[in-house]
Amino acid sequence: MVNLRRVPVGIVGASGYGGVQLVRLLMDHPEVELVYLGGDSSAGKSFADLYPHFGNIVELPIEAVEPDIIASRCQVVFLSLPNGLACQIAPKLIEKGSRVLDLSADYRFSDLKTYTAWYGTERSDRTTAATAVYGLPELYRSRIAEASLIGCPGCYPTASLLALSPLLKQGLIVPETAIIDAKSGTSGGGRQAKVNLLLAEADNSLGAYNVARHRHTPEIEQICSELARHEVTIQFTPHLIPMVRGILATVYATMRDPGLVRDDLITIYNAFYRNSPWVKICNSGTYPQTKWACGSNSCYIGIEVDPRTGRVIVMSAIDNLIKGQAGQAIQCMNIMLGWDETLGLPKIGFYP
Amino acid sequence: MVNLRRVPVGIVGASGYGGVQLVRLLMDHPEVELVYLGGDSSAGKSFADLYPHFGNIVELPIEAVEPDIIASRCQVVFLSLPNGLACQIAPKLIEKGSRVLDLSADYRFSDLKTYTAWYGTERSDRTTAATAVYGLPELYRSRIAEASLIGCPGCYPTASLLALSPLLKQGLIVPETAIIDAKSGTSGGGRQAKVNLLLAEADNSLGAYNVARHRHTPEIEQICSELARHEVTIQFTPHLIPMVRGILATVYATMRDPGLVRDDLITIYNAFYRNSPWVKICNSGTYPQTKWACGSNSCYIGIEVDPRTGRVIVMSAIDNLIKGQAGQAIQCMNIMLGWDETLGLPKIGFYP
Amino acid sequence: MVNLRRVPVGIVGASGYGGVQLVRLLMDHPEVELVYLGGDSSAGKSFADLYPHFGNIVELPIEAVEPDIIASRCQVVFLSLPNGLACQIAPKLIEKGSRVLDLSADYRFSDLKTYTAWYGTERSDRTTAATAVYGLPELYRSRIAEASLIGCPGCYPTASLLALSPLLKQGLIVPETAIIDAKSGTSGGGRQAKVNLLLAEADNSLGAYNVARHRHTPEIEQICSELARHEVTIQFTPHLIPMVRGILATVYATMRDPGLVRDDLITIYNAFYRNSPWVKICNSGTYPQTKWACGSNSCYIGIEVDPRTGRVIVMSAIDNLIKGQAGQAIQCMNIMLGWDETLGLPKIGFYP
Amino acid sequence: MVNLRRVPVGIVGASGYGGVQLVRLLMDHPEVELVYLGGDSSAGKSFADLYPHFGNIVELPIEAVEPDIIASRCQVVFLSLPNGLACQIAPKLIEKGSRVLDLSADYRFSDLKTYTAWYGTERSDRTTAATAVYGLPELYRSRIAEASLIGCPGCYPTASLLALSPLLKQGLIVPETAIIDAKSGTSGGGRQAKVNLLLAEADNSLGAYNVARHRHTPEIEQICSELARHEVTIQFTPHLIPMVRGILATVYATMRDPGLVRDDLITIYNAFYRNSPWVKICNSGTYPQTKWACGSNSCYIGIEVDPRTGRVIVMSAIDNLIKGQAGQAIQCMNIMLGWDETLGLPKIGFYP
Repeated sequence: MVNLRRVPVGIVGASGYGGVQLVRLLMDHPEVELVYLGGDSSAGKSFADLYPHFGNIVELPIEAVEPDIIASRCQVVFLSLPNGLACQIAPKLIEKGSRVLDLSADYRFSDLKTYTAWYGTERSDRTTAATAVYGLPELYRSRIAEASLIGCPGCYPTASLLALSPLLKQGLIVPETAIIDAKSGTSGGGRQAKVNLLLAEADNSLGAYNVARHRHTPEIEQICSELARHEVTIQFTPHLIPMVRGILATVYATMRDPGLVRDDLITIYNAFYRNSPWVKICNSGTYPQTKWACGSNSCYIGIEVDPRTGRVIVMSAIDNLIKGQAGQAIQCMNIMLGWDETLGLPKIGFYP
Repeated sequence: MVNLRRVPVGIVGASGYGGVQLVRLLMDHPEVELVYLGGDSSAGKSFADLYPHFGNIVELPIEAVEPDIIASRCQVVFLSLPNGLACQIAPKLIEKGSRVLDLSADYRFSDLKTYTAWYGTERSDRTTAATAVYGLPELYRSRIAEASLIGCPGCYPTASLLALSPLLKQGLIVPETAIIDAKSGTSGGGRQAKVNLLLAEADNSLGAYNVARHRHTPEIEQICSELARHEVTIQFTPHLIPMVRGILATVYATMRDPGLVRDDLITIYNAFYRNSPWVKICNSGTYPQTKWACGSNSCYIGIEVDPRTGRVIVMSAIDNLIKGQAGQAIQCMNIMLGWDETLGLPKIGFYP
Repeated sequence: MVNLRRVPVGIVGASGYGGVQLVRLLMDHPEVELVYLGGDSSAGKSFADLYPHFGNIVELPIEAVEPDIIASRCQVVFLSLPNGLACQIAPKLIEKGSRVLDLSADYRFSDLKTYTAWYGTERSDRTTAATAVYGLPELYRSRIAEASLIGCPGCYPTASLLALSPLLKQGLIVPETAIIDAKSGTSGGGRQAKVNLLLAEADNSLGAYNVARHRHTPEIEQICSELARHEVTIQFTPHLIPMVRGILATVYATMRDPGLVRDDLITIYNAFYRNSPWVKICNSGTYPQTKWACGSNSCYIGIEVDPRTGRVIVMSAIDNLIKGQAGQAIQCMNIMLGWDETLGLPKIGFYP
Repeated sequence: MVNLRRVPVGIVGASGYGGVQLVRLLMDHPEVELVYLGGDSSAGKSFADLYPHFGNIVELPIEAVEPDIIASRCQVVFLSLPNGLACQIAPKLIEKGSRVLDLSADYRFSDLKTYTAWYGTERSDRTTAATAVYGLPELYRSRIAEASLIGCPGCYPTASLLALSPLLKQGLIVPETAIIDAKSGTSGGGRQAKVNLLLAEADNSLGAYNVARHRHTPEIEQICSELARHEVTIQFTPHLIPMVRGILATVYATMRDPGLVRDDLITIYNAFYRNSPWVKICNSGTYPQTKWACGSNSCYIGIEVDPRTGRVIVMSAIDNLIKGQAGQAIQCMNIMLGWDETLGLPKIGFYP
C-alpha cells in the first residue's frame, strides 16, 4: 500500500551493489516511498530473489524498463546502470517530468567530447546532457537544488575532490603537483563474477590497476580545473584493497606557501566545509580510517603538512557505496526536494 | 539539550564493542535520549576520544560510575561490563527506580549456583537476581514487559536457542542428541588487545576454543531444559572465524519422527515465530549467510532434513553485536516500555 | 634442459589452484623434473601467462592434451581436471605405461554405481577403475606403493578421515553418531568466477552449503564403512569460511566407553599415526588452527572428550590445497616411486 | 645431533614474526644448522611452546642471551630484537668472531646522529657501527660479502629502494619529486597485542599512519642520497592494509626526460637488476600484486609512465617478512659465506 503523502521514487538497475544500497536506504527514508524497481536482466524476479535477506521486507518485483511507465509512477528516478545506458533513458524520463539521479558516468561531463574520449561511446543527447549538474553537494549545492538531472560523481572522484577542493579553491597548492593515491575495497568492482575479484585472489593481496589511464581521471580533472580556474592535469592511481567497502584517497601536493602549518589548514578546511554536514575534519594529528566511514554517508578528512618537503598530505575516507554512490545520490535528492540534506541517511558507520 | 519528551537512558561501560553499538543505535532511537555514559577506566574522556568518528555527533563525556547519580538521571540503564561487575551496581539502580538491562552473564541464571560454578564468583544479590528475566524476547516477551531487570543473553545462546526452541518446545527431537557447532567473528572477543585476536594471527585462520567447557553452555542448557521440561545436556563448540562480526550456529539433532520433511519443519518454525518480527525463516533449500544479518537485529534461520540419517540441521545467523548483544537489549527495552519491539532498530543489514 | 637423472612428470590441467600448487611443489622436488603442462582451454599460452609471478621461473608452455604424447614423455602424470574428464584420459596413459595420480573424484570409488549416483556420469572404464587405489597414504600406504592409478581424496574427506580413522578402526565410537562439521576457505571452490566466491560476497560472511547432499559424503562413508567393517552413514556439513585456504573438520561422535579420557585418546592417536610423518597430534588441551597447516603438507589433530555428554570431539586442520590436494598427490607419488614420503614437501606452514 | 659439515647459526629474538620466519627458512637451508635460539623473555620455554605447529619439528629450547656462549656456538648470528638492543650485543659477538646480521634499525645508519635523532637512543658503539654494511644485496653485494656486521634494511625501505634505485642511479628523475606511498600488511607491526592491530579493528579498514614522520624515512633518504650523489629529501607515507603480509610501494617521480616511454624504463630496470636473481621486472602493462611475492624472497616491480604528467610510477611488491626481513637476512648470509644468494630461499610464493 503506497503512502500518498510520500514522494514516489524508483530505481532502474536495482540488482547491483549500488541498487541494494539504494533500496536499503530509501526504504527507511521518512519522506519517500519506493514504488518501482527496474532491470531488464532480472525482470520478473522479486528483489528478494536477488537478495534473500530482503524477504518479507522488500517484496517489490523487478519490472521491465519502460520509461513512460516509470515516469508516470515516479517523481524521482535513480539510474544505477552500466555506463552508456542511462543516456538512453534519462531524456525520456525528464521529458515526462521525473527528476533523475544517474549513478553512472553518463552525465558527469560538461564536455561530451571528454566522455567519448574516455568511455568510447558517441552521444546524441547533448541537449539533455547540457542540463545535468555534477552531484557533489559540497561544491554544487545550489545548482543541484534546481536541477532535473544529476550526474552523480564516481566513488574515487568523491573522495579525491573533497580532499582537494579547499586547497585548489583557495589557491594554496601548485595544482600540477597533485598526486592522488587512492585505495578501494573490491565492492567498487560491482557484483560481477570476475576472477581478479574472487576472495581467493583478492584477499591478502594488493595492487594498483589502470595506472595513468583510469576513467575517473578526467572527471577529477574537470572539477579541479574549474576550482583552479585553469586546465589542470592530475596524477591518479587506484589500488584494489582486500576489503569489501571503503575508499581512502591519499593526496599529495606542494604548497605555494611553505610556511603554512597543519593547524592553519585544519582551520581552512573547517571553514570551507562549515555548511557541509557530511564532511568531518579530523583533529590535529588524527588520520581517518575507512572503517569510521563505512555504513555512513560521512567523509572523514585528515590533514598533515611535511615541513621537510613543503607538501601537504590530505587523506579522505568514505564508504564507496554510500557517500561514494547511493548515499550521495540520496543527499542530492534531499537537496533537490528542499529537504535537510542529512534526511534518511546514516550518520555513524557500523564500526567495527 | 535534552529532549524532555524522550525517555532518558544511560550506558555503563560504553567503551567496548557492546557500548559503541548501544551508543550508535540509541542515538537514533526515536523515543529515547542518551544522557549518560559511564566507565571507570575511561572516566574524564569524551566518547569521541575513544571513537574519533563520533566527533561532533556524540560528544557526551564518560563519567565515573555512581549508581545514585545514574539512577537519578536515567529511567533505563544498560550495563555493558565484564562479568561480575553488573551484580555490584544493578541492585542499587533498581532500588532507586531505574530499569536495568545487563549485557553480561550476571543475571542470566535462575540458579546462582550454576553461575558460581561456571564463572567462579560468589554472589550476594540473590534477592535482586531472583527478579531478573532472561532477555530473549522470542521466548519471554510477556515476562520481559513487566521486568525491572533483564539478563540479556549471550551471543552464542541467542543464535543457538532461536535455532533449537521450536524443536524442543514441540518435542520434535531427542534433546540429548543436540549438537551446536557455533562460529563467531572475532569482535565477540571484545576490544581487548590479545595476541590471538590480532589480524596477523586470526585472519586466514580458524579454530575451535573452550571445547566442552565454554561458559555459554550452561546458559543454553538452562533454557533448553525449560523448553524440554527436563534436564538437558547439550554439546556446544565455539569456533573463531576470520571475520569481524556475525555468528552462525549449525545445530544437529535426531528427530523423534524420521518421517518429517524439510517443509514440515519450515511450517512449524514459521508458526512458532509468527509474532516475532526479528526472526526470518529462509525459504526451502536456502541457508542463511551471516552477512545477511550483519548490521541488523534479524536472526535468519535455515532448515534442512537429512532423510539418510534422520537428523534435522538448523542454521541460524545473527550479528553478534546487534541481535547477539546491543540490539537485543534495545528490543527488550522497547518491550519493557510498551513500544513496538522493532522501534529504532535496523531491519536490513549493511550488505555487502 | 631436462635433467636426465630425474623422473619426468607432467600435469594435465595446470591452470587451476591444484595445478599451480603442483607446479610450485614439483619444481622444487629433488627427484623429479616437470616436463609437461597440459590444458585444452589454455593450450598455446605459457604458464606465466596464467600466473605472471612464475615468469622466468617456470616458462613451460601449456600444451594440448594428447595422451600418447604425454605418456611418451612422462613417467608420472598428475590429472587436475574437473570431474568426469580424468576417466577419459587415464586408461590410455596407464596403457602406455605412465603412472597416474588423479586429483578429481573419478577414481575415488570402489563401486562406480556410487560415483554415478552422486556425480551423474555413466562410466565405461570399469577395468581401469578397478585398479585404482584411494590415495590416503595414512590408511593405504602399501597399496599405493604398488598402484599405477591413484584416486586422490577430496579435501574434506582427507581432513575428515584422518580425524575419524583411529576411532572407527579401534571400534571406539558408535559410527552412526559421527557428525562432521567442516569449514573450508574459498580456494576450495577453484579459480572460477562465481558471484558467491567474490571477496565482496564471501568476506566477512559465513554459511553452510550443500547440507545433507555434498558429494564428498559418499567418499567419506566408503572409507568409514571399510574401517568399521559395516555400512556406515555419516552426517557431513560443509561451510564456506572467509579465508583463502585451510580446512577445519570438527568431528563429533559418541564413545562406546564413556570412561575414556582425553589422554587415552591422544595415546591411541599417536600410536595409530606412529609411522605417518604428516599427521601431528596436538598436546593435551591444545586445538589446531588452520593457519598452522597452511603452506605445509601436515594435518594437525586435536582431541577433546566431553564427560558430560560422553562424546569425543576431534578437530583436524589441513591446507586444502596441499594435504587436501596437490601435496597429498605428491606424497602418494613419493610412495609409488619408493622415496621417503616427505620428499620435496614443505614441513612447516608459512605462518603467520 | 648437530651436522658438523654445516655452518652453525643462531637466532637471538626468535619469538616474533621475524624469528619464526628465520627458524622456518633456516631449518630447511642446505648449508646451515640451526643450533641456538635465544630470548630473555621466553628463556626456558621450547620454541614449540610459542608456536605449537613446530612441535616435533623444531624442539630447540629458548635460551638466555649470553653473547660469549652464543659466539662460541654460532658462526653466524641473526639478531631479531627491538631497536636499541642489538647494539648492546653485536660488538661482543663480533669481537668473539661471529658474523652478525641485525634485523633492527641499529646498524642501518652510516651516521649515528641520524639514528639518535629518529630513534632517540644515544649510542656508544661507534667503532662497531662504522663497520656495518647496509644489507640490501642488490646495491651492496660486494661489500656485504666482506662484512662481519650487516644492518638489514627495514621492510618499507627494501620495497622503496628497489623501486627507486635505477631511476636515481641513472639520473632519470628529479629526486626531490619522489613520493613513496607504501602499503603494508599488519604483520609488520609484530606479534604484539595492540588494539589497532586486532582483526576486529584492522580488518575491512585502511588508514595512513606516522605521516611525514615514519622512522623508515631517513633510512630511505640515506641510500637515495648516496645514489643521487647529493642530499635528497623523500616523501614517505605508510598505510596499514587489512591483510597479514605483503608490502606494496607505489612510487611517483617526475622524469628529467619526458620523452622516455614505459619500455625504455623496463629495459633500464632489467639491465640494472641483471645480476639480481630476486628482482623480477614485470612485462609491459603488468603491475605486481603482493600475493605474487608472499612466501618468496622475490621483489616484483612494475613500471608505468604517464605522458600526460611526465611522471614515472613504479610499483614494487615484496613479502614484508621474507624479502622485507628474514629472507633478505639469509640472502645476505649466503653472500657473506660465498654461497649462491638464492640458496635455501623460496623462489615462488604460496599463491593463492
